[in-house]
Amino acid sequence: MTALAVRHIAELCTCDPARGPAPGVIRDAALVARDGVITFAGPDAALDGHTVPADAVEIDARGSAVVPGFVDSHTHLVWLGDRGDEYAARAAGRTYEEIAASGGGIRATIRATAPASIDDLAGAARARARRMLRAGTTTVEVKSGYGLDHDAEMRQLDAAARLRADADVPDVALTYLPLHGVPDGDHSAYIDDVCERGVRNAASRAAFADAFCEVGAYSVEECERFFAAARASGLRPKLHAEQRSRTGGALLAARCGAVSADHLDHATASDLDALGSAGVAAVLLPGAALVLGGPPPPGRRALDAGCTVALATDCNPGTCYSESMPLMMSLAVATTGLTPAEALVAATTGGAAALALTDRGVLRPGCRCDAVILDTPHWVDLGYHLGGDVVRCVIRGGRAMVT
Amino acid sequence: MTALAVRHIAELCTCDPARGPAPGVIRDAALVARDGVITFAGPDAALDGHTVPADAVEIDARGSAVVPGFVDSHTHLVWLGDRGDEYAARAAGRTYEEIAASGGGIRATIRATAPASIDDLAGAARARARRMLRAGTTTVEVKSGYGLDHDAEMRQLDAAARLRADADVPDVALTYLPLHGVPDGDHSAYIDDVCERGVRNAASRAAFADAFCEVGAYSVEECERFFAAARASGLRPKLHAEQRSRTGGALLAARCGAVSADHLDHATASDLDALGSAGVAAVLLPGAALVLGGPPPPGRRALDAGCTVALATDCNPGTCYSESMPLMMSLAVATTGLTPAEALVAATTGGAAALALTDRGVLRPGCRCDAVILDTPHWVDLGYHLGGDVVRCVIRGGRAMVT
Repeated sequence: MTALAVRHIAELCTCDPARGPAPGVIRDAALVARDGVITFAGPDAALDGHTVPADAVEIDARGSAVVPGFVDSHTHLVWLGDRGDEYAARAAGRTYEEIAASGGGIRATIRATAPASIDDLAGAARARARRMLRAGTTTVEVKSGYGLDHDAEMRQLDAAARLRADADVPDVALTYLPLHGVPDGDHSAYIDDVCERGVRNAASRAAFADAFCEVGAYSVEECERFFAAARASGLRPKLHAEQRSRTGGALLAARCGAVSADHLDHATASDLDALGSAGVAAVLLPGAALVLGGPPPPGRRALDAGCTVALATDCNPGTCYSESMPLMMSLAVATTGLTPAEALVAATTGGAAALALTDRGVLRPGCRCDAVILDTPHWVDLGYHLGGDVVRCVIRGGRAMVT
Repeated sequence: MTALAVRHIAELCTCDPARGPAPGVIRDAALVARDGVITFAGPDAALDGHTVPADAVEIDARGSAVVPGFVDSHTHLVWLGDRGDEYAARAAGRTYEEIAASGGGIRATIRATAPASIDDLAGAARARARRMLRAGTTTVEVKSGYGLDHDAEMRQLDAAARLRADADVPDVALTYLPLHGVPDGDHSAYIDDVCERGVRNAASRAAFADAFCEVGAYSVEECERFFAAARASGLRPKLHAEQRSRTGGALLAARCGAVSADHLDHATASDLDALGSAGVAAVLLPGAALVLGGPPPPGRRALDAGCTVALATDCNPGTCYSESMPLMMSLAVATTGLTPAEALVAATTGGAAALALTDRGVLRPGCRCDAVILDTPHWVDLGYHLGGDVVRCVIRGGRAMVT
């Protein structure tokens, strides 16, 4: 049995709607956990001897705000190779689409990643995952997607699953993303294989099935066919939708009851209404929008449409090489119309919703004790201190990690 | 005597135009310094026993790129108080101008900062300056500007000067910025004092004189009068120009031969032409533009107009609380049209030009040995790895600093 008590927290952001306006702040608070599960989250003065186990590790958090651990619900963490050259080429005026058409983009990463061993893939992902934990992320979704080949996709999922054995990385949720890069010529043979062998073998590894619905990638019809097969194998759909253009992916996600629709930079009001009505989380990726120079994702509009909004890094080698959820919060406030409180909820509770995880993203009894102790008393510094490293200590499953 | 030899550098970015296209890269390079001054910067294979002192501290930089230390040429580092509340208020829809009109903004920081002691001011600035050094900044410009009172302004300059005694912060250049916040009612009595006592007493402390030329702050005529007095006392002009609106500040800076014109978000083509022709450095602050949601500063247009471009953080409690020059490079590439190479030159050579410092910002013999050793072999990761901490070691005046 392990127990933890974080005492005298300057501002405890519970992100619990029952605690009042977001982010549900309690001042001079305590957070207590036993065996990784929160047993108390409330005013420190309300703690008594009964709720703190005698053997609890105690942390004095005077002068610190505490927030839920970030849930980064959209990443492509398993890659090899480098695309710094494309970054420079885009800055010199080449578009994402031109680079992709000439064999760069996702195809370039597939060439470097598809042949790799599980060991090499896990090693590359681990370094990034460690940086994520140090920046406060306690749960990360990881996609395959750089295989364009059945076995390569499975190796990428297996590599990401290896991270579950590590204590110094976030908890991992897995997504099978076979429809990302596109094969030469006709897609149908590849999609046939994905819809047969692919989903069957992915279902024992991953929780979600994802596709890149975009001009130059996969059509709404192809994604819909894939979703049907994925569902039949027990995988829950997610979708890259309306990133570079409006293709109808958001409406597909709503129609199919996807867990989330991601990017949405070109989503219309009716797209967002449909997602809100269908209970599909809107995963916003403001880093990728910044890097690609497109319109920012629709934060305010998505909230107004009744969507659950999540923020994520999209960590990938092409359009957003970033592990930092605090930076995504800064960008969400600066570019998408979220308030700092909405951004914090989107980075925690919203991320959990986008992964259908009901045991985290909120600090209340019964939830996993995943939290971040800041080296400032003000939680708002998370976004306000642009590019600042305000993380003092990360708590993952009730254990305080050295960061 | 101290000596340093950094050997087998994967990519040495000299930022020396004599070394070819920016950023003047030499592969498998060495950098040698004696008493803080570079004695060799070239291919490692060209080193012989003569150029490396026998007692040199040697660093093996295999797998690392090395770049010049960043020169952050525009910061407001000396402040007390907190403006996280304004950050939240702006996100909820209030404008910078509305907040300023109701006593917030610069006025709020003046209330917290003007009464403070030199000790307290230096303490607050020191914490920020240490973070800057850790992020690779080896020279930082620091402005007064939160006094609106002669003695308070002098205390802020004296507090910043205290940092010169510290080894673990960047080298400091000082700027007297008395025309920043505005007094109630008529400005003229305050400006009279600034133009008499102010510039006389600032001249023994600072190198530069700066003003906020903006609607709601100081007019072109007021700034011009201040510049005349400042010059007579030996201070060189700099100017906050065309940030929130076009007021004619850039043309004033060109006409007065200012060292730099800063912000320029609303500068016209003829403004930039005038700056380019006059040899006035264009200091771009993409973080502040991002936070305030205005147009990005004119990176590409300023280069095309022949300006020397500098990037800086604008580190301040209102519009950009950031110490990170690598993040400014990411933002400059994403939003201002600079290439990664141009952004690196702007963050180093350009910053030095904006402070009229000819002994740094380039890695070549005779210059100060201020450099950053990265934990990646690719210098482009500085901007490409968005929010990533890619600094392995900072060298300041020829000494490797633990970061």
